[in-house]
Amino acid sequence: VNQLFLALDYGGTKHTAAILRSGERVWAAHSLVFSPPGANAAYDQATLLRMARELLVQVPGRLSGIGVSFGGPVDATRGLVRLSHHVPGWEDVQLGAMLQREFGAPASVDNDANVAALGEWRFGAGQGANSLFYLTVSTGVGGGWVLNGRVWNGADGMAGEIGHCVVRPGGTPCVCGKKGCVEAEACGPSLARKAAAWLTDNPGASSLLREYSGNRPATLTGEIVARAAADGDRIAVGILDGSAEALGQGIGIAVNLINPERVVLGGGVTKAGDRWWDGVRRAARAQALPQARVEIVSAALSDDAPLWGAAALAMAAMGSVHGNR
Amino acid sequence: VNQLFLALDYGGTKHTAAILRSGERVWAAHSLVFSPPGANAAYDQATLLRMARELLVQVPGRLSGIGVSFGGPVDATRGLVRLSHHVPGWEDVQLGAMLQREFGAPASVDNDANVAALGEWRFGAGQGANSLFYLTVSTGVGGGWVLNGRVWNGADGMAGEIGHCVVRPGGTPCVCGKKGCVEAEACGPSLARKAAAWLTDNPGASSLLREYSGNRPATLTGEIVARAAADGDRIAVGILDGSAEALGQGIGIAVNLINPERVVLGGGVTKAGDRWWDGVRRAARAQALPQARVEIVSAALSDDAPLWGAAALAMAAMGSVHGNR
Repeated sequence: VNQLFLALDYGGTKHTAAILRSGERVWAAHSLVFSPPGANAAYDQATLLRMARELLVQVPGRLSGIGVSFGGPVDATRGLVRLSHHVPGWEDVQLGAMLQREFGAPASVDNDANVAALGEWRFGAGQGANSLFYLTVSTGVGGGWVLNGRVWNGADGMAGEIGHCVVRPGGTPCVCGKKGCVEAEACGPSLARKAAAWLTDNPGASSLLREYSGNRPATLTGEIVARAAADGDRIAVGILDGSAEALGQGIGIAVNLINPERVVLGGGVTKAGDRWWDGVRRAARAQALPQARVEIVSAALSDDAPLWGAAALAMAAMGSVHGNR
Repeated sequence: VNQLFLALDYGGTKHTAAILRSGERVWAAHSLVFSPPGANAAYDQATLLRMARELLVQVPGRLSGIGVSFGGPVDATRGLVRLSHHVPGWEDVQLGAMLQREFGAPASVDNDANVAALGEWRFGAGQGANSLFYLTVSTGVGGGWVLNGRVWNGADGMAGEIGHCVVRPGGTPCVCGKKGCVEAEACGPSLARKAAAWLTDNPGASSLLREYSGNRPATLTGEIVARAAADGDRIAVGILDGSAEALGQGIGIAVNLINPERVVLGGGVTKAGDRWWDGVRRAARAQALPQARVEIVSAALSDDAPLWGAAALAMAAMGSVHGNR
């Protein structure tokens, strides 16, 4: 009889459930829903359970494990959701225990960055590496570690927070309250904000940034800045280079501290082009000691990394309870 | 019959060998020698072997494992010494295999920072912690990780190199070629150099630094700067505070990235007094995200940490070959 693994990705507004048969690399069943505006935790939990039940009816076999990627802080050792920054009612929800009770299989829960790291390690760009640091560079900058083939959560589930390491003391103010954090310097919105500030400060100057944004600085995005840089705009190039350098400095520090076998970058900003990648790699190499490898590669699973990681979590959960202890 | 563990600490000029009986916390036998000036690797190897043989004659029992702390770069997975920065002839020496052949017991070799980390974890200030970051703040600044009760070496044996992470871009030049590294800002000699530079730049100004050094800036040490700061010298206080802050910033970054349960500080500079400790803790707390613990404690084993760590390595080696793979 087939061994089945249930993978759930709870993203705040978009939720995915899927079933994987052991040994296969395509989903046996897959389901995606968007939450209506104003949904709360109870509503979303009911939705997740219904999605999972429907999938399990479709695929014959025995459920051997459940893995969950949660978009928010999680106590992975206890399968406990701490809260969601987007959806009310997730405070201290025993999601792992609930799923285990409901479906009679061991369940593991971790935050999306950690789970995506595990997904890339098992099914994506991290395959074959003993250790890997995964970063998502998008609206924010987050990270997750896989060490010796297991997620490293840290003592408080806070490991991987490269976004809030200061690389430019006195630099751009960050949501965390510090200045010059990797996230504040390198996330997508920071590219847009820096470009908008320049346009506002230089009302007469011509720039592709002005042209591509229809002279409306507030409509700028990281993508537009990257495009203007690719098309040769001097200001956009400077902003993109600075952003890539800050990220690379942070990665180089992570290399000096942990010396992972591979670094995997995902998220929208990684689509900014070769110049950005070169800048990230150059700055990381300059920061890292020469004896430590700096192997920085693009994520392979893109938005599916958390779901594949949830499947990998489910497989790990089958053997024993997943966690660092 | 007693199970015996052989611990060796090769420090470049000072070498220690000791034997521990299983379950005991005092050395069954202990031996210390200083190398004569101009000693090379062959001479020191012969010395280490002779010391070990003599100790084993003194203590009846069966040798179950050998652990070595080596003051220089090591490939721990292969028990291979890469080189010594102080003693010629250590290039690519199979020290683990040699000891294993000679004494018929499994041997593990790692660099002194990693081994000291393991020593503090098993026998010192890190007891009971699942994960720990150990730093030695002395002539240089080095570090080592224990994660899940094992040394984390990294893919190239380079993990723990907090000394060469930049926390002050454009700051003090470092031996590694970068500027503003933790080591360049926070090691003992950097305190002395900054104080000496101030005295030289301000020939007329009075300062305890001038008094305590007999107006000979070149004779300043980190200890003198710490003493002048403790006695209220304004310049010395500024130098000490800056140094503590830089170190704390580096520790806070390590906390954000790995979230260890405990951070243990050893080395001469940690004797600089409460003001220095407060400064380190404050800066680490300010850098780290609020949800991550920042528990920074003093090392308990001081100079014996590598030897105790070597004993812990030997115990780990008994079960299986030690390493990250």
